[in-house]
Amino acid sequence: MKTVVMKFGGTSVATPEKIIGVAKRAIAEKEKGSRVVIVVSAMGKTTDTLLGLASEISAEPPKREMDMLLATGEQVTISLLAMAFKALGHEALSFTGWQAGIETESVPRNARIEQIHTDRLEKVLDNGCFCVVAGFQGVDRIGNITTLGRGGSDTTAVALAAALKADRCDIYTDVDGVYTSDPRFVGGARKLEQISYDEMLELANLGAGVLHPRAVEFAKNNQVSLSVRASYSDEPGTIIQEVVTVEKNLIVRGVAFEKGIARVTVTYKKPFNGSLANIFTKLAEHHIDVDIIVQSITDAFPPSVSFSIKEESLEEARRVLEQYKEEIGFVSCEFEVGLSKVSIVGSGMVSNPGVAAQMFDILRMEEIPVKMVSTSEIKVSVVVPLDEMQKSANALHRAFGLDE
Amino acid sequence: MKTVVMKFGGTSVATPEKIIGVAKRAIAEKEKGSRVVIVVSAMGKTTDTLLGLASEISAEPPKREMDMLLATGEQVTISLLAMAFKALGHEALSFTGWQAGIETESVPRNARIEQIHTDRLEKVLDNGCFCVVAGFQGVDRIGNITTLGRGGSDTTAVALAAALKADRCDIYTDVDGVYTSDPRFVGGARKLEQISYDEMLELANLGAGVLHPRAVEFAKNNQVSLSVRASYSDEPGTIIQEVVTVEKNLIVRGVAFEKGIARVTVTYKKPFNGSLANIFTKLAEHHIDVDIIVQSITDAFPPSVSFSIKEESLEEARRVLEQYKEEIGFVSCEFEVGLSKVSIVGSGMVSNPGVAAQMFDILRMEEIPVKMVSTSEIKVSVVVPLDEMQKSANALHRAFGLDE
Repeated sequence: MKTVVMKFGGTSVATPEKIIGVAKRAIAEKEKGSRVVIVVSAMGKTTDTLLGLASEISAEPPKREMDMLLATGEQVTISLLAMAFKALGHEALSFTGWQAGIETESVPRNARIEQIHTDRLEKVLDNGCFCVVAGFQGVDRIGNITTLGRGGSDTTAVALAAALKADRCDIYTDVDGVYTSDPRFVGGARKLEQISYDEMLELANLGAGVLHPRAVEFAKNNQVSLSVRASYSDEPGTIIQEVVTVEKNLIVRGVAFEKGIARVTVTYKKPFNGSLANIFTKLAEHHIDVDIIVQSITDAFPPSVSFSIKEESLEEARRVLEQYKEEIGFVSCEFEVGLSKVSIVGSGMVSNPGVAAQMFDILRMEEIPVKMVSTSEIKVSVVVPLDEMQKSANALHRAFGLDE
Repeated sequence: MKTVVMKFGGTSVATPEKIIGVAKRAIAEKEKGSRVVIVVSAMGKTTDTLLGLASEISAEPPKREMDMLLATGEQVTISLLAMAFKALGHEALSFTGWQAGIETESVPRNARIEQIHTDRLEKVLDNGCFCVVAGFQGVDRIGNITTLGRGGSDTTAVALAAALKADRCDIYTDVDGVYTSDPRFVGGARKLEQISYDEMLELANLGAGVLHPRAVEFAKNNQVSLSVRASYSDEPGTIIQEVVTVEKNLIVRGVAFEKGIARVTVTYKKPFNGSLANIFTKLAEHHIDVDIIVQSITDAFPPSVSFSIKEESLEEARRVLEQYKEEIGFVSCEFEVGLSKVSIVGSGMVSNPGVAAQMFDILRMEEIPVKMVSTSEIKVSVVVPLDEMQKSANALHRAFGLDE
């Protein structure tokens, strides 16, 4: 018998009516002859309400207690969804993270799943019963409730699919698949039928926002056949798997972009002398994610290094640099905001070395200034002014033939 | 070192400010040199909101899922209260029912606590940390979340006090103690300094509403020193314990009353022939609590039996009697609503056989019709018209010298 894991996010379960809709959808899936597990997030704005309560008590609430608080969100959804199944004449049982055997590290608010004990779920599924599992949460070895951080419910779904050796893991969301670019901003953006794990990973990391990178990585490592599809329609979505039949031999498969980027430039009086490592260690210790790093040519004077971070981390970065100025040994630092990142992604780029050059050419012709560049085997990212983000994305999308 | 369990109900934790107030109160207790466990209920109207959500999904939601849903209420409170301790500079950890080791029967919505594994709480308390425990909930042997039914948080507090061999269990509530009668309705009602478990049990069962009978029973069986006191003041409350120093040798210690009583009278054509047991078995099977039972004199014709139930069970009782009419073998049944129950309670009644007669005398002088009577060793209850409830209670309170 097939096993299917279906995941529905917060907007798909925002009201009792929508929850009943989710149950109907899962019943249709079961009637095709599958064992069905449903993973759900907290209803609509629940998490915001809970965060609001916490903020009235403390500006910096302990993370363990935040997990305790936030985990109630999904627990409400699973109980209501199980009730909906029963009301529609089907057997279902709900499970919190700990009840579903989802064991994580002891890292509150951002725990990774270590293992899943599926005995109870297997038994319940074999009895022809739906399993409704709370996404985003687990339990550590000493019994503390943990949460998985952003995109946690996607990760729960993929991890359960891997543990249960499911045939499919379907992520239902408010878009109907993965697009060559964001159709709200890029004319001619098309839905992809298939995409590879690696491409999806780059797109997810680049802010395409459909799936969380951790979930994609988990799917890749466990070869879970993943799909992204609309919760509001029956259209097939996009399948994410290892090997992809590329339509029309396109080298670039998607254009991603992201606003809210800031550039920090740190200038030294003397050559770096190992302090470069120092600067990034300090930032990492304060949980500031550094994305692109560009070092000035070694014999330039004064020596400097630039890096990009998210605009929301800017204040914290400024504070950290200030605090460790002596230790890191730099003279000055500059901050530039109002930037964005635009990226092209495609597995075919590995064997086509000219793609980056082609990208710069396209941007040059559009007179878009490139502030920073970063490349991997299957993507090229550039930092451009926020004003030029949409124009850049559209130009690249068109020039690489994605709108055909 | 002393151990104290403090319990705060829904109204005492209704807002973030009130939660901070609870934390301060517990800190003051700890600073007297005690290990402190705090048991809390769901915030204010949370339970109603959750019930509302469930009712939008199903008219008859499965009980297991109701427990899953309702248990989130206290989980929110414990996390916020632990945050409040931290914000005030104190260490605290929150625990759901299952984390606190509270093991119950597998009876959803009305489970009894079977045992408490206190290892984790003991360890945390010994580290000088507050333990914040969710009231009203536990876990059964296969890991389902259960709830304890009405007054469940009181029971959690008492059971934890017993398991931890606590020196005291203080129930903080919106009244400042146990009164000789309800001061909102009875002039001259006074707060009692002490009351015995048995007296409290009768008062609790009779609708005095301060403490749940199950909690009192648990306290009696485990000799937990219990007190009821106000969450809004520092006044000492009422201590509930085995032996009580009775002030002024009063025989009657309290007058309780309860509205919403209905009387059912079932008339038979033939003598009962065992069908009496039958009728009460059927009602019990449908979870209808029968209180007072009065059987007509055996040779009366037609034979009949009257019993009192809560008005809210009337529809269900009507349905059950209708359904089993043949089997039970009765001719007709009558229903009377608009009744109330008034009771006098006092341990001294055991050795004073004239008290019931005295009570009837008082009521007769006030021209109050007595519809039904029930007695135990330490209480006498009468069913009177609802219109006469308050007058009866005041007359009895005065006549037995409780207002002095």
